[in-house]
Amino acid sequence: MTRQQLIEHIFTKKTFLCVGLDTDIKKIPQHLLGNDDPIFDFNKAIIDATAKYCIAYKPNLAFYECMGTKGLSAFERTVEYLKETYPDHLIIADAKRGDIGNTSAMYARTFFDGYDIDALTVAPYMGEDSVTPFLEYENKWVILLALTSNKGSHDFQLTTDQDGERLFEKVIRKSQAWGTPDNMMYVVGATQGKMFQDIRMLAPDHFLLVPGVGAQGGSLQEVCKYGMTDDCGLIVNSSRGIIYASGDTDFAQVAAIKAMELQREMATELDKVNK
Amino acid sequence: MTRQQLIEHIFTKKTFLCVGLDTDIKKIPQHLLGNDDPIFDFNKAIIDATAKYCIAYKPNLAFYECMGTKGLSAFERTVEYLKETYPDHLIIADAKRGDIGNTSAMYARTFFDGYDIDALTVAPYMGEDSVTPFLEYENKWVILLALTSNKGSHDFQLTTDQDGERLFEKVIRKSQAWGTPDNMMYVVGATQGKMFQDIRMLAPDHFLLVPGVGAQGGSLQEVCKYGMTDDCGLIVNSSRGIIYASGDTDFAQVAAIKAMELQREMATELDKVNK
Repeated sequence: MTRQQLIEHIFTKKTFLCVGLDTDIKKIPQHLLGNDDPIFDFNKAIIDATAKYCIAYKPNLAFYECMGTKGLSAFERTVEYLKETYPDHLIIADAKRGDIGNTSAMYARTFFDGYDIDALTVAPYMGEDSVTPFLEYENKWVILLALTSNKGSHDFQLTTDQDGERLFEKVIRKSQAWGTPDNMMYVVGATQGKMFQDIRMLAPDHFLLVPGVGAQGGSLQEVCKYGMTDDCGLIVNSSRGIIYASGDTDFAQVAAIKAMELQREMATELDKVNK
Repeated sequence: MTRQQLIEHIFTKKTFLCVGLDTDIKKIPQHLLGNDDPIFDFNKAIIDATAKYCIAYKPNLAFYECMGTKGLSAFERTVEYLKETYPDHLIIADAKRGDIGNTSAMYARTFFDGYDIDALTVAPYMGEDSVTPFLEYENKWVILLALTSNKGSHDFQLTTDQDGERLFEKVIRKSQAWGTPDNMMYVVGATQGKMFQDIRMLAPDHFLLVPGVGAQGGSLQEVCKYGMTDDCGLIVNSSRGIIYASGDTDFAQVAAIKAMELQREMATELDKVNK
């Protein structure tokens, strides 16, 4: 998916919501557990219920790997279903990969060639040659961890170097020599509030993938106030707040309501942008 | 596996070699490709040929994920075969995982509960709560990326902060509040030479997992000179230099020879330690 297509979808549908498919067999409604593939069935119901309120889906690989080949198969079926049924939705594999060059190239092949997924989250610690193999695929996206939503983000990401630059700023600055706003985004946690201003100083045009609204306590309004651009520039993810809003047979309907509520807030924010 | 068991294996077998099972379907000998599970058959032959010269095996997940459920099944079979046939060998899953707490907990469950693997490589960028879920398992090891073997290690890992501390040093120092030399190791690339001295100042007792000997150009002698402790304190990995030393029907025999050569060098180094 190109940047232009992404922007069009956002302004047409008036949403920049990403639904996180962190599907945990221990948390899905009991009535699904007798099915052959409860993880896929859960995802399919969530997707069908929420597709009109969002522009992206983000399965986190941890939740699928946890179930071995069965989990991986559910992941593959979910991706296939999305591509067939909702081809305009961006598919983000949240895998936080990153390794030496020849190994990152294998991961890139897996996600971009094999699964033909649109975007992959990548960890920056190992530097340029761990990231660039992912950037060699046309119309695919690297989403580089910059300033994450968790408490541990303070341990290293905020460390200030001798030139006064914080690590997450250095990651954003240096990585702009590797990719462009057309093939690279950054992960910035919704819990980081005013830090979005600092990030927009460095990356005025890049899309930001923003987890942490909902269960983790981030505010959508604050993210938009400090992070939104004329192109929107934001993809805001909610996982647990949508997919586990009800643990009963009405889980998909309740997920739709939660997604719709976020979509309406997002429409209000988008109306502030002159597009 | 406990630290004491690991040390005993090293001094009994006079080796601290880890064989990296970076098994790429595009690089294994052609005569295997007609088999039902060529990846597993290749691994099994390599393992049987090299087991007496090494104390650990390290499959890198990228090479298995690349083949979807088939690859994951080959990974699972390899782990099962190792556990049944060579239960004294440390199994390291090289996956470089790390995510917010509840997601890292899922990865920990996958590798330590599910596969019952001994050790997992973990990326430190997301800080404490991305690492500690892996430390909750008894007799399991977190191997935290500190100073990697690749060129990109210079991009962020060597950044000096306002207190004069480099990022990899901060990772080593801070993480010692999370784990101990009994459940945590660090990845330090063999290509980093004298830096091992700096690392031993901070982590005199921790085992270091050292990739980068062989294809990446690191020197075993230099690693031992600056990094070895009285407990050995090193696990040195070689992947491509062993498993692809021959691309023909004799691949396992040639791998054995390459592993034996490294084992002999290692025996000489271990003889210098008064144990």
